[in-house]
Amino acid sequence: MAQSTVATYLLERLKQAGLRHAFGVPGDYVLTFMDRLIESGIEFVGTCNELNAGYAADAYARINGIGCICVTWGVGGFSAMNAIAGAYAEQVPVVVLVGGPRTTQRRSSMLLHHSVGDFSTMQQAYSHITAASVLLDDPAEAPQRIDRALARCMAEKRPIMIEIPADMVDRPCPPPGPFAAPARPPSDPDALAEALEEAMSLLLTAKRPVILGGVELHRYGLMDEFHRLVEASGVPVATTLLGKTVISEHHPQAIGVYEGGMSRREVRDVVEKADVLLCLGAWISDICLGVNTGRLEGRHMILANSGRLKISQHVYEQVWIGDVVSGLADRMPVAGLTHPPFTSVSRLLDTGFVAEPGRKLTVSRVMKRINGFIGNDTTVIAETGDSIVAAADLVMHHDVGFIGQAFYLSIGYALPATLGASLADPARRPLALIGDGAFQMSAQELSSLCRRESNVILLLMNNDGYTTERVIHEGSYNDIQPWAYHRLPEIFGGGWGERVTTEDELDAALERARASNRGPALVEIMLDRLDTSEALKRLGAELSPDKGRQAAQPVLSAVEPDAAR
Amino acid sequence: MAQSTVATYLLERLKQAGLRHAFGVPGDYVLTFMDRLIESGIEFVGTCNELNAGYAADAYARINGIGCICVTWGVGGFSAMNAIAGAYAEQVPVVVLVGGPRTTQRRSSMLLHHSVGDFSTMQQAYSHITAASVLLDDPAEAPQRIDRALARCMAEKRPIMIEIPADMVDRPCPPPGPFAAPARPPSDPDALAEALEEAMSLLLTAKRPVILGGVELHRYGLMDEFHRLVEASGVPVATTLLGKTVISEHHPQAIGVYEGGMSRREVRDVVEKADVLLCLGAWISDICLGVNTGRLEGRHMILANSGRLKISQHVYEQVWIGDVVSGLADRMPVAGLTHPPFTSVSRLLDTGFVAEPGRKLTVSRVMKRINGFIGNDTTVIAETGDSIVAAADLVMHHDVGFIGQAFYLSIGYALPATLGASLADPARRPLALIGDGAFQMSAQELSSLCRRESNVILLLMNNDGYTTERVIHEGSYNDIQPWAYHRLPEIFGGGWGERVTTEDELDAALERARASNRGPALVEIMLDRLDTSEALKRLGAELSPDKGRQAAQPVLSAVEPDAAR
Repeated sequence: MAQSTVATYLLERLKQAGLRHAFGVPGDYVLTFMDRLIESGIEFVGTCNELNAGYAADAYARINGIGCICVTWGVGGFSAMNAIAGAYAEQVPVVVLVGGPRTTQRRSSMLLHHSVGDFSTMQQAYSHITAASVLLDDPAEAPQRIDRALARCMAEKRPIMIEIPADMVDRPCPPPGPFAAPARPPSDPDALAEALEEAMSLLLTAKRPVILGGVELHRYGLMDEFHRLVEASGVPVATTLLGKTVISEHHPQAIGVYEGGMSRREVRDVVEKADVLLCLGAWISDICLGVNTGRLEGRHMILANSGRLKISQHVYEQVWIGDVVSGLADRMPVAGLTHPPFTSVSRLLDTGFVAEPGRKLTVSRVMKRINGFIGNDTTVIAETGDSIVAAADLVMHHDVGFIGQAFYLSIGYALPATLGASLADPARRPLALIGDGAFQMSAQELSSLCRRESNVILLLMNNDGYTTERVIHEGSYNDIQPWAYHRLPEIFGGGWGERVTTEDELDAALERARASNRGPALVEIMLDRLDTSEALKRLGAELSPDKGRQAAQPVLSAVEPDAAR
Repeated sequence: MAQSTVATYLLERLKQAGLRHAFGVPGDYVLTFMDRLIESGIEFVGTCNELNAGYAADAYARINGIGCICVTWGVGGFSAMNAIAGAYAEQVPVVVLVGGPRTTQRRSSMLLHHSVGDFSTMQQAYSHITAASVLLDDPAEAPQRIDRALARCMAEKRPIMIEIPADMVDRPCPPPGPFAAPARPPSDPDALAEALEEAMSLLLTAKRPVILGGVELHRYGLMDEFHRLVEASGVPVATTLLGKTVISEHHPQAIGVYEGGMSRREVRDVVEKADVLLCLGAWISDICLGVNTGRLEGRHMILANSGRLKISQHVYEQVWIGDVVSGLADRMPVAGLTHPPFTSVSRLLDTGFVAEPGRKLTVSRVMKRINGFIGNDTTVIAETGDSIVAAADLVMHHDVGFIGQAFYLSIGYALPATLGASLADPARRPLALIGDGAFQMSAQELSSLCRRESNVILLLMNNDGYTTERVIHEGSYNDIQPWAYHRLPEIFGGGWGERVTTEDELDAALERARASNRGPALVEIMLDRLDTSEALKRLGAELSPDKGRQAAQPVLSAVEPDAAR
């Protein structure tokens, strides 16, 4: 069998895991490795900075199942940390490839540029936000270290960091054997059996059972089985915001996103009146509960997360969520479960929106308009802030159609994420909702969309500052410099931009966007400073320190989904 | 005495340490603290993102003696990490203030937005790149924790991180006592006496002694004493690139920047032919040695760093650099030391530059032109890449006139640093040299300069990509999207921009910049793709893997200045 090198082994494994693109920024320690990456057939996608590369890789990984950044040691790695922290928090499998100093340099005490502390400082910092971080300083050990780290990335859906010293890149090592997809974690059969029996007996006697679907169903590829369970049960299904689109929102049982006091009234009523709530792969975070305004206590809760199942106050350990979903689906009675009537979220689409010429735009009307614009071939990317809050009410067609950091909530994520989404699935057209404050965070990445002539649609919701924060707590720090955002495509050299203030202008711009296919379409939507989605208004009222709600005790203090560990 | 609160205590201490501005981005956990910060009279300077806030605070601290960012927990802290890592590497005292979740929230296991891992994950990650990181979760303990952390920041010239839970901000605590500037570390008197004696005996018998000044002289406020030593000795003085301007380059003994094979020939000759080299506060890093092309072995080296002095191969511990500088100055003979004649760097100014109309611009000619443009009231900020390499040959007037990350070398630093410099010393006008690739990294911060109507001068050296890397190792990753950079002021709403391609156009633009005083002047200087400073050409040749120099053994492998620990 032909020899490999450390680089070819690593790159072959990444291709076997499904990687086709790597985002990043070059730097001297990584240049030789980047050459090998390009030679491997993985496309290198240069971004303007490393944080943006990280965000792009995160969105890419959410769709593609694995993502990657390739950066230089020290400066590059540290710059990307917030994106990787976000990937860790939201369980996104991103591989961080870092080209580092030669092993010979490491053995001396020479001070090297880009260094801070000692040679391991960056790796130590990364150890807190990765499932594994390894240094390939020994070609004989490299295959094992790569395989182990990659297995953890794929199994735990968490980022890993692999550092390749420049003089190890082309060192020979054994060739890769067949690629082993990570084994599904086994359930303890007795624990599983008892857990399923208890859960089914609760569901069978329930009068108002409801299913709440969460993001782990997507991460672990359980959506088909989930769909089977949902249909077998017949009961209404809500999702968390992070889990939006774990089921098509055109499904008749889908009632929409549950997010405590931010939810639409109908969703909240159904979920909070459930007598048994079956939560599958959902993280019950503060935001998931509408900043602790959700009221889920005082009922039977069945909480399945990746490796455990909790019913009321007791826990079954070593119970794999995939076995729970399948096991419950298998055990559903033919007639399904008892439940009162409910309203599908898809009926929101029937409201029929007609633009009123000259009418000033509002968030609420813009969302209604977009609901009629998005289709089967759209991926919606929603930025942290009112964009993601407002987007909860968009009715999504397919099961990977929604990308947003609904838990970690880092602003600046969406624009680079749009780049990642456009490459992960070219058949689907990204449509991003981005606030002006967030846009400024990572604005330069519009340039990469121009450069690649990506036909993405960017709806820049310009409300003159950090409106989400104005609602929570106003201060001069919420003001930002007003930009002529819509003219940025002229500077970056690609696509086009347009500023719209009325409904008919928005209509025209959206139609122009639909028809254009070369470079990004940037539609700057002018909104009143304090115009927000209805959900955000409710959230702001709840979060305001004047309302004394911030100190509210969490309602589900015993819930410890995997993400908290 | 009036009570304080945790916030007022902390803010009072920061003001006593000299802080007048804090850079940052708001986020819900930090909003109440930000109110207190603004009430304290410290000016909050909003930046477009946290990394840029960190860079701005770093430059501000280099000039002002202390700098600060104020950001939110999780997303904000992680985003700023690379700037703080750079401050740690280059010993810059930046205080990172993080507003975090309430202590009541910390006691529950609720999943909170912006969280990753557990409540301490961000603090743990910061512990690797700060001199101290503390959590103010106990009002009674807060004063002590603040004072200890701040003392370390001031004494070690390293960043610290202070996390303030939202419910601790207004909790009462004892008021601050008088502010104690950190005590100078004491030297061991016996070690100091012997070290000075040995050093002086080497210097007195030397035929060609040379002084190499480094950045610690600036950080520890030793420049007056250094000046006294230099004048008493009469010998030529070079500086490292990071230490550029620890002595005015108009001083007759100043010969310029030593950086191994990147140095001007005259500097290299003097330094590398020295029989005794007195290195004061200098870090002998790879870049300081022109990527290991410097040849300093085979002579007597006297290396004084913050807490130790090394002569040849032996080390005196507990010898404070301030005592070394003063002690040597006190012991200099009236006639100074023996030395051959040398050429002052200030004679570079006599070359007289006259713009040739229509002549295409080159880096080398641009630097000559700028040498005649900068004055006593200029602070030069040089971006990582050819800008900082080229700027080595600018002749700087005063002792804090040069800002650049000559050791950590993070690209994207300079533009936000220009914002920081403009606020740290409004009497000096910042002039920044920034490459196009680096500019893209942090481009949005031009908006903050527009917003504040800062009259900075930005010279954007547009050579169409990562030219420094092209010289080292060419690949498609070194290409970037071409922007109409000079038009960005139109988008951001302030200042003006102009693109120049010939020497007369540059002349006119510089005069326009000199005369304008409202908002940034952005002069986009069009250069050939591979046109570089002479120094970078030499560096590129040395760094190229084809030249087999990357594996060169460091020439000073036993040198371990403080930064390596």
